[in-house]
Amino acid sequence: MLTNRFEHPLNEKVRIYLRLEYLLRQMTHASQLNDQWQHQIFFRALFDLLEILDQIQLKSELAKDLDKQRTKLKNWLNIEGVDQSALLAILDNMDLAHHQLITAKRLGQEIREDRFLSGIKQRFSIPGGSCCFDLPTLHHWLHLPLAHKQNDMTNWLKQLAELTEALYLWLRLTRDSGQYQPQIARGGFFQHDAENASLLRLEICPSYGVYPMISGHRSRFAIRFLPFEEGAGIAEAIDFKLAIC
Amino acid sequence: MLTNRFEHPLNEKVRIYLRLEYLLRQMTHASQLNDQWQHQIFFRALFDLLEILDQIQLKSELAKDLDKQRTKLKNWLNIEGVDQSALLAILDNMDLAHHQLITAKRLGQEIREDRFLSGIKQRFSIPGGSCCFDLPTLHHWLHLPLAHKQNDMTNWLKQLAELTEALYLWLRLTRDSGQYQPQIARGGFFQHDAENASLLRLEICPSYGVYPMISGHRSRFAIRFLPFEEGAGIAEAIDFKLAIC
Repeated sequence: MLTNRFEHPLNEKVRIYLRLEYLLRQMTHASQLNDQWQHQIFFRALFDLLEILDQIQLKSELAKDLDKQRTKLKNWLNIEGVDQSALLAILDNMDLAHHQLITAKRLGQEIREDRFLSGIKQRFSIPGGSCCFDLPTLHHWLHLPLAHKQNDMTNWLKQLAELTEALYLWLRLTRDSGQYQPQIARGGFFQHDAENASLLRLEICPSYGVYPMISGHRSRFAIRFLPFEEGAGIAEAIDFKLAIC
Repeated sequence: MLTNRFEHPLNEKVRIYLRLEYLLRQMTHASQLNDQWQHQIFFRALFDLLEILDQIQLKSELAKDLDKQRTKLKNWLNIEGVDQSALLAILDNMDLAHHQLITAKRLGQEIREDRFLSGIKQRFSIPGGSCCFDLPTLHHWLHLPLAHKQNDMTNWLKQLAELTEALYLWLRLTRDSGQYQPQIARGGFFQHDAENASLLRLEICPSYGVYPMISGHRSRFAIRFLPFEEGAGIAEAIDFKLAIC
C-alpha cells in the first residue's frame, strides 16, 4: 500500500536536527548525480546548512542529547530478554560519535574558510544569481570533469562527517524509540498526550487526499487533517498510523 | 576540443534577460526529471523568477527590445544575397511573439494566484525550510504520481509561455548577431570597443585553468583572466574566441 510519511518535531532542537538531516541528505544525493543543474541543490543545501550552524551552538547541544540517549540505553544493560551484544554495539557507536563530535573543530569551519565556496556563497542568494557572469569561478568549476567535481563534493561532505554521524545516529535511535500504532481521526481531528516525546511520525494513505497540520509541544499535540484540493471534503474517519518517539 | 563558454551582459537589461533564461531553463529541465529532490530546483527557480518579475516592468521592456530588433532586421528585406524566405519567417515569428507578449496578462499573474504555490513560497527561503513539517502541502504534492507532478509543472511553465517565447527569440537573434573571432589575451588581459553591443560571448579551452572577469559597458570592455587554482600562474598568451553581439 502506498503511504505518505510525515514527521513533526515536538521541540525547537529537533526541528533544527530534522532540517540539518534534510540538507545533508540533499547534499549526499546531489554529490552522486551527474545532472547539469544538480550543483544548485548541493550548494544551496550547503549554504543553508552553514547558516543554521552559524545561528546555534549545535555541537554542545547535540553532544548533550547523545549523552542523554546513552544514559537511557544503559538502563537496558543486564536486563533479561534484551539483546546485549546489539545494545553494546550501539553504545560503542554512541561513544565514538560523541567523542568525535566533541573533539571536532568548529563545525563546518574548513568549509567556511574554503576560498572557492566563500567566493560563491554570497551571490547564491540573489534571485538567479548563479549565472556564469555572476559567478565565473562556479561556471569554471562546473566545466571540470565529473570525477573532479564529485571528489570536491565528497571532500566538503567529509568535513561535516562528525556532525553527520552524530546527527544520523541520534535521529535513528529516536525514531526507533517509537512504534507505529493504528489511529483514527474523527472529523479530521486527533489529539493525544506526548509526555517527554521529541518527534511524531505519521503514515497515511494518499488516497484520503489530505495532509496533516500538527501543532503541539512536549506534553500534548493535535493533528488536523486538511484537504489538499481546495474545497474538497474529507472522510469522517481517517485511518493513519502514528509513532510517538 | 573541450570548450568553456561564458557570456557577459553589457547592460542591466540583458543581465536580467540572461538570469530569466537561466531560471526558465532550470525549470524546464527539472520538470522533465524524476529525481526526489528535483522539485527543489523547480520551485526555487520559479520563486526567483517571480521575484525578478516583481521588480521590473519586463513586459514593456522586452516588447520594446523585440521591436528594435525587428526594425533592424527589416533593413535586410529586398537586399540581394539575403535569404528572403528565412528572413520573412523570422519576422513572422517576431510579430507573433511580440503580439502575444503585449496582449498577455501581467506576467506570472496566474502563478502568483495559485493557492498551492503561494502557500509554499514564503517558507522556501528559510534555510532548510522545505522540510515536511514546514511545508506539509508540498510534502503531499511530492507524493503524488509522477505524471501528476509533471503535468502541474508543465502547466505552470505554460503560464510563462509568452515571456519564454519572446525572451528566447530575442536572445537567439542577439546571439546570432555576433560571430566568434579568435583573440589573444597578453598577460591575462584583453580590451576592446563594443559600440552598441549587448552581450559578449567567450569560448576558452579549460586547460588554461583560468576564468574571465569581465567589466565594461556599451562602448568598451575589458577581460581579465584569473587562475582558478589559488596561486597558479597563467599563460603569457591565452587564445580564446570572442563574439560581440
